[in-house]
Amino acid sequence: MTTTHSLTYTVTFGDCDPAGIVFYPNIYGWFDRTFHDWLAGFGGHQAICTELGAIGLGLMQADAKFRRPMQPNDTVTIAMTVRDWGRKALVLGYEVTMGETVMATGEEVRGMFKRTEQGLSAGEMAALKALLER
Amino acid sequence: MTTTHSLTYTVTFGDCDPAGIVFYPNIYGWFDRTFHDWLAGFGGHQAICTELGAIGLGLMQADAKFRRPMQPNDTVTIAMTVRDWGRKALVLGYEVTMGETVMATGEEVRGMFKRTEQGLSAGEMAALKALLER
Amino acid sequence: MTTTHSLTYTVTFGDCDPAGIVFYPNIYGWFDRTFHDWLAGFGGHQAICTELGAIGLGLMQADAKFRRPMQPNDTVTIAMTVRDWGRKALVLGYEVTMGETVMATGEEVRGMFKRTEQGLSAGEMAALKALLER
Amino acid sequence: MTTTHSLTYTVTFGDCDPAGIVFYPNIYGWFDRTFHDWLAGFGGHQAICTELGAIGLGLMQADAKFRRPMQPNDTVTIAMTVRDWGRKALVLGYEVTMGETVMATGEEVRGMFKRTEQGLSAGEMAALKALLER
Repeated sequence: MTTTHSLTYTVTFGDCDPAGIVFYPNIYGWFDRTFHDWLAGFGGHQAICTELGAIGLGLMQADAKFRRPMQPNDTVTIAMTVRDWGRKALVLGYEVTMGETVMATGEEVRGMFKRTEQGLSAGEMAALKALLER
Repeated sequence: MTTTHSLTYTVTFGDCDPAGIVFYPNIYGWFDRTFHDWLAGFGGHQAICTELGAIGLGLMQADAKFRRPMQPNDTVTIAMTVRDWGRKALVLGYEVTMGETVMATGEEVRGMFKRTEQGLSAGEMAALKALLER
Repeated sequence: MTTTHSLTYTVTFGDCDPAGIVFYPNIYGWFDRTFHDWLAGFGGHQAICTELGAIGLGLMQADAKFRRPMQPNDTVTIAMTVRDWGRKALVLGYEVTMGETVMATGEEVRGMFKRTEQGLSAGEMAALKALLER
Repeated sequence: MTTTHSLTYTVTFGDCDPAGIVFYPNIYGWFDRTFHDWLAGFGGHQAICTELGAIGLGLMQADAKFRRPMQPNDTVTIAMTVRDWGRKALVLGYEVTMGETVMATGEEVRGMFKRTEQGLSAGEMAALKALLER
């Protein structure tokens, strides 16, 4: 599949743990950063949510495979691909590379959360898809 | 399966994002915190790695399902279960609950990384298992 | 001065950097955690801000002195003292100790930010003081 | 004083808190990022520490003033200036700007920590200065 959006990021000392490599939750943070950087091209998360009456495009699940450790000053590319538009879920694939080498891969499943009388519930994705494709 | 180790944690303002709920990478951070708190009872990650000649008990893969959003001042329990000792992989299950409600679940697959002439490689898990069970 | 509020916290692996000690921005995060834990006793930051018509009790400045390095599994106490109620600023002192040893000290100056037509501005602190003392 | 090193950084959603603005400890993280990015031009923190027999160029104190709130997708410049080489302390000034507007300023005082029989102690800065100026 073709990449939908990508960015480059340079690993900093503070991203790394006592083993000297990236503390793994930060890699999910890079996935999220790439997703939000994509939305920035459409006005950003807050403007989109306001338009759609949602409180957030949040996570239902996420996974990642960590292929190689990353260290301070490594510059990586995070590429995001829209894998699937479900009725109430958007599936996004991620690949973190350094040069030609794949360092990590992952997937996020996101919903569009709306506040209802029963608490948060996942709304229809069609409106988001229409907004991003118009 | 029975819980191997658990801890309680109170969500703080700084764990949360502009949607007012926990920023999801932090939930993996709680998994990692629980794992390291377990190791603390055996001398801690650094002492264990020194004894085993490893540089870290790091991640090969991880996934999580986010069932309900968590907010500042929510106190949750993170319960960890040893699911499987593979030859070169330790599989850990996690469940985050608030009272009786499951907020998130997840799994980590960890290896014992050793430095070799070819870079990092995953060592045999038997030595770690023996140390934790002695 | 007497301590206004305190909490205990156990340093985790992911709080620490490749030098094996706590990554220093996290220590400010503990100050913030203690402040918000204090507010939790009065309904929490969000309820207080809603009542006062503010968007946040945010920072105008902060400083810290780092006396001794802290490591994974160290359990510290963070003690917060209200130092001064200014007209538009609340000054809070912090002390991080492990047993009898002072590990770090610091100060936060916070304002009560309100949204005005000209952007954010700092509101009068008297209303917050009254709420916390009633 | 002239800027010693600078970098640009785009604020991401996950850097921000429930008030919708950057969680303030992260701003110190940007100071640290800029410092380490400067060191990267001289081989990076780890290589420098190995050469000097140190375990880290860590913090003795830090302060910051937060002038204006920053939001997701703001692109800022962080400029670092070497303010003073003390015998056992390096003083660094920081300025965070967005366009012509100053968003935050701050200062770090760093030492070169060495492991001795009595624990960590601050070493002479002359060797670091010589290395960075050669």
